Amino acid sequence: MLTALELIGIAAFAASGAVAAVRARLDLFGVIVLAMTTALGGGLIRDILLGVRPPSALVTWPYLAVAGGTGLIVFWFHPTVEKLRRSVLLLDAVGLGLFVTSGTSTALHLGAPPYAACLVGMTTGIGGGAVRDVLLREIPLVLRREIYAVAALGGAVTVAVGHWLGLPAGPVAVVASALIVAVRVLALWRKWNAPIARRTDGA
Amino acid sequence: MLTALELIGIAAFAASGAVAAVRARLDLFGVIVLAMTTALGGGLIRDILLGVRPPSALVTWPYLAVAGGTGLIVFWFHPTVEKLRRSVLLLDAVGLGLFVTSGTSTALHLGAPPYAACLVGMTTGIGGGAVRDVLLREIPLVLRREIYAVAALGGAVTVAVGHWLGLPAGPVAVVASALIVAVRVLALWRKWNAPIARRTDGA
Amino acid sequence: MLTALELIGIAAFAASGAVAAVRARLDLFGVIVLAMTTALGGGLIRDILLGVRPPSALVTWPYLAVAGGTGLIVFWFHPTVEKLRRSVLLLDAVGLGLFVTSGTSTALHLGAPPYAACLVGMTTGIGGGAVRDVLLREIPLVLRREIYAVAALGGAVTVAVGHWLGLPAGPVAVVASALIVAVRVLALWRKWNAPIARRTDGA
Repeated sequence: MLTALELIGIAAFAASGAVAAVRARLDLFGVIVLAMTTALGGGLIRDILLGVRPPSALVTWPYLAVAGGTGLIVFWFHPTVEKLRRSVLLLDAVGLGLFVTSGTSTALHLGAPPYAACLVGMTTGIGGGAVRDVLLREIPLVLRREIYAVAALGGAVTVAVGHWLGLPAGPVAVVASALIVAVRVLALWRKWNAPIARRTDGA
Repeated sequence: MLTALELIGIAAFAASGAVAAVRARLDLFGVIVLAMTTALGGGLIRDILLGVRPPSALVTWPYLAVAGGTGLIVFWFHPTVEKLRRSVLLLDAVGLGLFVTSGTSTALHLGAPPYAACLVGMTTGIGGGAVRDVLLREIPLVLRREIYAVAALGGAVTVAVGHWLGLPAGPVAVVASALIVAVRVLALWRKWNAPIARRTDGA
Repeated sequence: MLTALELIGIAAFAASGAVAAVRARLDLFGVIVLAMTTALGGGLIRDILLGVRPPSALVTWPYLAVAGGTGLIVFWFHPTVEKLRRSVLLLDAVGLGLFVTSGTSTALHLGAPPYAACLVGMTTGIGGGAVRDVLLREIPLVLRREIYAVAALGGAVTVAVGHWLGLPAGPVAVVASALIVAVRVLALWRKWNAPIARRTDGA
């Protein structure tokens, strides 16, 4: 169950990276590389920070297959995927929720103090997208959209508080992920009418 | 004493990142993230290179509080901080001095050969600012201002030579930090009249 | 023999970084820093991914001397080096071949599964150039030139298959490196007449 959700999160992040790569007119390989970097970058950073060897993103072949395969599918069907932009944003929110939650949990179980675990969790969720934007010469979205990082922070703190209260990890992870998704979806909904002003502001 | 200086260095780097973020018109969270990245990035890279687990930047809450708090203060008072640009540059020099020195010392004490320790120390001092500039789509300042990296090199070599001569680490660290600050301040002073030519040249 | 080839690879990558830095009008120090980053970045990423401490790029002084010295030479003689652009591209291909091969082999000998070893090897070969391009605000070349990464993949897979068949590592490494160089040279040859269309496409 958790693994299935994790793979959905990876596919969602991979799709966001591949769509960005197609827009930047990268070739097939560039699209696949960016899909894999976006999907696996956050987990890689998490494992480097926590000293996990070897990094799970490199040795778990289903992660690699799903990330690369998603990039390939986006490359071939990108006119369709472009139309599915809202679905991608929703899946991206799911990915963010799952990655922040799993990153925070992993760090807590390895004995990191709560604030460090929250930082690691947020980095896990945000890192892949930041690498994607840097490679494409964009200022990372997370730096310009307040609600993205705030959602990640809220989810990470929820996991940390649940851990501190001794609550069972499974339900807490579900609640934290749902919270992140809900905040992201609400944020996307509310900004529906103000994307241009936002861009003028943020650029 | 050393801890107090270290926190001043972190605050200085955080202020430089936050001012750059405000100039790039990032929102509140972007400013805080960039302040923390600039202030803690160098130490994080150092710990990853040296294999220190967990990275001290993540588990030492005063570092996080000072870096994030400085970002917040800059965001609210940035018109004032802009006017304090010279003070920020001075504090940045102090931060560079302390980070290069502490990075070189840490590497030497962990048994790294002198040239490797100098590289690690320079990376510690320069890394945070480089990450800041990459995230804001700038060519890192250190690549364009010779004297910045030369100052770092001079300080790192001073620490390594002192260690090689068996001199006491404390005074050597103070001398090396002071050297870096002095070179930086002199460099800023001397370029007072030639910033435009410099930019035309370097861009 | 292998060490000599490795140093040639480092010099080749350093030259590519230094030429790019001269073109971006960086100063002397910027050119040297970019030469060292390009030449040593891939190996550094490899060692961080594999948990090798300390990273060999930092503690092997001939690597540092060759990388920095090459940067210095390019800085002083860059009009000549510019004319040697084809030689640099050839040397770059040699560097790619050696780095991908050695990265894949190292990962396999440390017990990584084949697909992970291929990823690590490709990252070793491609990483330095990617860091170079990000620092100079370019979309990494590898994302835009399909044949670059495909050559790396082919070499890495050759090493992994050779390892799986139990073939002796030395000859396999030579064949894999030669394959990468051959593919790269052929690719450069064939694109001789279409660089502008390519750029229009890829930008």
